[in-house]
Formats: sequence, C-alpha cells, structure tokens
Amino acid sequence: MNLWLTENCNDTGLTFRIKETLFTAQSDFQKIDVVDTHTWGRMLLLDDCVMTTDRDEFVYHEMIAHVPMLVHPNPKRVLVIGGGDGGTVREIVRHPSVEEVVLAEIDGDVVEACKVWFPQIAGELTNPKVTVKIADGVAYMANEAQNFDLIIIDSTDPIGPGEGLFTETFYNNAFKALNPDGLMVAQTESPFLNANVIQKVYPMYQRIFPKVAMYTGHIPTYPSGFWTWAFCSKQYDWQLPEAHDARVEAIEKNCRYYNRTLHNAAFALPNFVKDLLKTPAGASV
Amino acid sequence: MNLWLTENCNDTGLTFRIKETLFTAQSDFQKIDVVDTHTWGRMLLLDDCVMTTDRDEFVYHEMIAHVPMLVHPNPKRVLVIGGGDGGTVREIVRHPSVEEVVLAEIDGDVVEACKVWFPQIAGELTNPKVTVKIADGVAYMANEAQNFDLIIIDSTDPIGPGEGLFTETFYNNAFKALNPDGLMVAQTESPFLNANVIQKVYPMYQRIFPKVAMYTGHIPTYPSGFWTWAFCSKQYDWQLPEAHDARVEAIEKNCRYYNRTLHNAAFALPNFVKDLLKTPAGASV
Repeated sequence: MNLWLTENCNDTGLTFRIKETLFTAQSDFQKIDVVDTHTWGRMLLLDDCVMTTDRDEFVYHEMIAHVPMLVHPNPKRVLVIGGGDGGTVREIVRHPSVEEVVLAEIDGDVVEACKVWFPQIAGELTNPKVTVKIADGVAYMANEAQNFDLIIIDSTDPIGPGEGLFTETFYNNAFKALNPDGLMVAQTESPFLNANVIQKVYPMYQRIFPKVAMYTGHIPTYPSGFWTWAFCSKQYDWQLPEAHDARVEAIEKNCRYYNRTLHNAAFALPNFVKDLLKTPAGASV
Repeated sequence: MNLWLTENCNDTGLTFRIKETLFTAQSDFQKIDVVDTHTWGRMLLLDDCVMTTDRDEFVYHEMIAHVPMLVHPNPKRVLVIGGGDGGTVREIVRHPSVEEVVLAEIDGDVVEACKVWFPQIAGELTNPKVTVKIADGVAYMANEAQNFDLIIIDSTDPIGPGEGLFTETFYNNAFKALNPDGLMVAQTESPFLNANVIQKVYPMYQRIFPKVAMYTGHIPTYPSGFWTWAFCSKQYDWQLPEAHDARVEAIEKNCRYYNRTLHNAAFALPNFVKDLLKTPAGASV
C-alpha cells in the first residue's frame, strides 16, 4: 500500500510514506497517533502535527536541553512544561548536577503512549530524579512552580492545548518561578512559516527577561525544517563560559547534533530573521 | 481548485499548494515547469524537482556565491556551471572586483524560461560582464575552462543532466581550470536524505583540493530543509580575513540571509554530519 501522511502549514506540507498506524486514540485534549514511517522510524502526531520521530528527535531534544543546561553554572532543579514524550527529560538527566526534574504535561495519555511506543525517548521518565505531574502547565506555573534553575517550554504549536503556553501571563509566572539566576527556554516555531508567532512572543520575552536571544536548528520533520528556540535569562549570557569546558565536553561526546561550536553557531541569525525580530507583529515580512 | 505539487525524496515529500501552472516544456535534456504557489511565489521545477522559488531563492544564491567570493581576496574571473536561473550570477556581479562571469548551462531552454518567468532572479544574465554559454559543463570544464579565480558548481541533483557534475574527473578538471589560489564551491545535497552523495563526493574533493570544508544553510523548499555546500580551496581557509571587512560589510547589508556571523556559523557542523564525513560510503549512518 502506498500510504502517505501529510502535515500542512500555510499551504506547504511535509508528507511521509508510512508502513502502518501503530496506535491511535482521542484523549481528553487531543488526537494521538503513532505511525511507522519508511524513512523516519516511528512518528508521534498530536492533532495531526508531527511531534517527534525516532530518527530526528535528537536534534530537537539536544538543542532545547543542552544549550541552557550548559550555560547555567549549576542547574539542579529543572521544570519541563509539555514534553510528554520524555525526550527533553532524557537529555536533562544526563547532567550530573541535576537533582530534580519536574515534567508538567497536561495529557497523561501522551506519556503512556510514549512509554509504550518510544521507549528510547521516554526511558528516563521513570528515573528517580524525575517527577511526572499530569497537570495543566499554565495552572502549575501560576500556582505551584518555584525555585527552578531552568524552565523549558516544550510545547506543541500555539493552537489547541498549547495555546496558553504562548501568553505573557504564563511567561511572567515562569519568570517568578525561576531562581534569581534562572533561565527559560521555549520552542518558537519556524521563521519561514510562523513569522506571526515569532513576532508575537519575542517582544513578550523582552518585556520580562533582561536577556533574550533566539537560536536555531535543523529539524527535517517540522514545517520548513528551520526551527527556533528562545533563550531567556535573568543573568547569564548565552555564550558558554570557559569554566564549563569539562561539562561541555562530557555532554557533546554523547550527542548526535549538539557540540560547542554549534552552540555558538545556533545563535547566528540570517538577516531576514533579525529583521523579523525587529518588525512589529502583523507587518508583512 | 485544491491543487498540490509534491516532490519526493526517500519516501519523504515536500508538497506545495499551487495556484496554476504558468509554463511547461520538454527540452532536449529535461522537463521544465514553472508554477505559481500560494506561499512561495513562482517555483521552477526541472524533472519534477524544485530548483528555486521567488520567496526562498535568496538563501541558496547568497550562500553559494558570497561565502567563496568574500574569502577570495580579489575574485576577477568566475565560472558557474549550471545555475541557468541566473541567481548565482546575480549575487556574483554584486562584487566590484568581478571582471568576467562565465555561465555554462547545458539547457538553453532553462535560461530562456527564467528570463521570462523569474526576471528578478535572471536579471543579471544580460550584464555586460556575464557570458552565457549554452554548453555541457563537463565538456566545457575539460576542454575550455582556464584561469578562473572561483568555480561554482550550481548543479541539479546527481541524476539526469547533473550526473556528470558529481564525478572525480570533472572535479580534477575544475582544479586544473583554477588559478593557483583558486576556489571551488559545489552544492552537495542534504545530510538527512542524501548521505550517500555526501559520502561519495567529499572524499573526492579531499583527494584533489588541499583544503575542503562543508558549510550549511536552511532551504525550506529543498528536501529536509537542511542543505550543504562544499568549500574546496587550493590555498585560502574558509574564514573571512579581517582585511576583507569592508567588502563583507558592503555585501551583507544587501543580503537577506548571509552575514559575517552566519558565514562562520555555517561551517559549524552537527555531530552526525561530522560522522558522515568520516564514514566510508555505503556504511550505515
């Protein structure tokens, strides 16, 4: 059977030839599907959007985790909002400084599905340092989160369950939940296809955090393949301090994407992206 | 009409919603199509593969041209093989040092179609410094090319008319056609989807040129969005010398992708790509 699965974004699609559907469910929050693809291994979809695949998940998870973890001098307490597949948590617990990781994921069915179908991604969710809270990240951030060194917003797109994770109230609460030298990182979509999101959220970050920078990576199964994250910091710059050299070396040798040189390179932005960050939301780009 | 055009590569496709087909022809070498897309403007296809679009062509053309042009201290004579759309030539003639650009394109019908349908890309093909030779690039390189400061291999994929542009004989002839301090740059496909091409051609470059490096960019309308070029040099390193600062500044201010920081960042490779360059062709990656 010549079966293709397509995700569309702004009249542009990524289409994948699939072998079979392994799992499908409607949770209280979204549609969850796991398919086996010919080229990318198993693929997780939420509401028909590709979340991760066996073959390229390392790019997203290494970049969202190691960039802030290696900038912070001693990250002990880390909060992940979303990220129910466990890939971000897996990368975080590679750092020996970590004492506690809280994962606040709204959809317990995503966590359970990933434990079954993506054991290599979800494997550290049972690590004793990790607490999985099945909870609304927006409410958790407003009411419970405190004293974190790093908060990672590992969200879906800003529609559906992920929508509240792209608001100024939420980021203000994240700021309050961080220690005085804390960092926040958030995934911020594609400059080619989601310019409106970027133009909305970066001014918010800049109103809240003293230091804000965008960094980028290549994710072939996300729309346009060009993905970004926001680095938001109370105190530390995004550059790797020399004093962290041994820590960087210990992490990068087990990475398939991240390395010291790429850390710096990821913050180099094309001119059109720099222009996007300067242009008011709604303006044509 | 809900009309979609799809390019497939290794069971992975990019699909674009199109408004209409503007032009279609079968030349002596390949099928040529121009379509109008909803998101990317006009799009050129050769044998059903996306070659360029109005909206993202700047990435490819700026990166293939300005990286070597700004490394060379005084590029006067430049040869482009392929590149019949004229985008690479347009970027080259922005450099005041240039005295002569030769474009050797096998398919005159591509050049004519681009003059009609992509005037903003092809506009400099009539520049008095530019000579358009409708000729087989392989034969031209073997028999006529000489004394170039820079040779750019702006080829299609290594099947069909572009196949001969991925062979050791061709690169050996390019080496001979360069001045003693000459540079060659070639497009070298996607590390995610064309690992076999990369594993074949980089060892060839390394056998011929004293200095070889890969650099990368984000091209959303090419498979996987992650694209690479080979920087092959007889003498110069890929880093921008400080003495070129004024030249870099004059070029980057008119670029939408390229800038000095990105020049350096483009040579930072993810670990899996570095591994690919070390792995023998045919090995699993």
